[in-house]
Amino acid sequence: MQLPSTLLENAVAQFSKLPGIGKKTALRLVLHLLKQEVNEVQYFGETIAKMRRDIKFCNRCHNISDGDICSICSNSQRKQEMICVVENIRDVIAIETTQQFNGVYHVLGGIISPLDGIGPDQLNIESLVHRIEKEQTEELIFALNPNIQGDTTIYYIQKKIPHLHCKVTTIARGIAFGGELEYADEMTLARSLQNRLPVQQYVK
Amino acid sequence: MQLPSTLLENAVAQFSKLPGIGKKTALRLVLHLLKQEVNEVQYFGETIAKMRRDIKFCNRCHNISDGDICSICSNSQRKQEMICVVENIRDVIAIETTQQFNGVYHVLGGIISPLDGIGPDQLNIESLVHRIEKEQTEELIFALNPNIQGDTTIYYIQKKIPHLHCKVTTIARGIAFGGELEYADEMTLARSLQNRLPVQQYVK
Repeated sequence: MQLPSTLLENAVAQFSKLPGIGKKTALRLVLHLLKQEVNEVQYFGETIAKMRRDIKFCNRCHNISDGDICSICSNSQRKQEMICVVENIRDVIAIETTQQFNGVYHVLGGIISPLDGIGPDQLNIESLVHRIEKEQTEELIFALNPNIQGDTTIYYIQKKIPHLHCKVTTIARGIAFGGELEYADEMTLARSLQNRLPVQQYVK
Repeated sequence: MQLPSTLLENAVAQFSKLPGIGKKTALRLVLHLLKQEVNEVQYFGETIAKMRRDIKFCNRCHNISDGDICSICSNSQRKQEMICVVENIRDVIAIETTQQFNGVYHVLGGIISPLDGIGPDQLNIESLVHRIEKEQTEELIFALNPNIQGDTTIYYIQKKIPHLHCKVTTIARGIAFGGELEYADEMTLARSLQNRLPVQQYVK
């Protein structure tokens, strides 16, 4: 696909770098922007650049923040003694959207995955251990994806904090709401049976 | 979906305005950019804004251009007497990609569509008529989408140039390459039969 202008070509090349956006989609987006007002597109570009330049990460939980401490950590209404450990910021947003969790977070920034060359040193694990030592943490909830890497990460962090006596839990794995038993994989079904709940607890 | 930062929220809002991009996809794109270097994202924003600000349209054919006259119009290797009339810039790119056309273009910037409130005055039709009068145009090829609006536009332009004696053609409508007869609509199949070609001409 040959484009009639280098300016257009550069813009398309920039959009094509984004995940899931091919050259045709990039062209469609650029041609859409071309139909907008000059100052609107100027604002688009500036907003994106400003976001990357000025965004901060919370010193305590490594979540995205406008200041040094994020809005969740600085919220006195939330239980600061209950820390939910997640892989990335998208998981924080997903859990926040449920409006069911009233504690605080710790964003690891990834997950231990030797195949991808990611070891514990590249993650925010050291700061989590310090945090648990310093703060009066009562419960540590692991909300990691249920796979080998997630389980390895849980195991590693647990080994790091044996002398601390806080409760350590993980979010339940089981059949998803609206899912069907016959299509569930064996592993999920087996775990779901092992970790069965009294019906009273389930419906409460 | 509540986001932990207004900077992030603004960036997501900007991406969500693009066609086919919802809030979840926008967030994915923004979080991807957040992982890139500051100067790379700065460059992304500047490239998009610069594209909109500095891009020009060819004075002759209304195609996108880096200068006053586009690279196709200024190419002496191309037949300047053969004008292909298209609806928009994307059609120019599509035809150029086939590498089968060696003439020049005229971009209408839309198509006559009373239902959408688009009349002939909003399109680059006047400049096409002037161009045909002034230049020694030998053939006018209509490459418009085969629908009522396309046919109306062809009819209107033809009425505007009765005193000129250039050849007027339209791209063939028929069964698409790789298509199947039984799934073709009646209209296409009927036209395809009417406009049948001698086999010698087809395989040449």
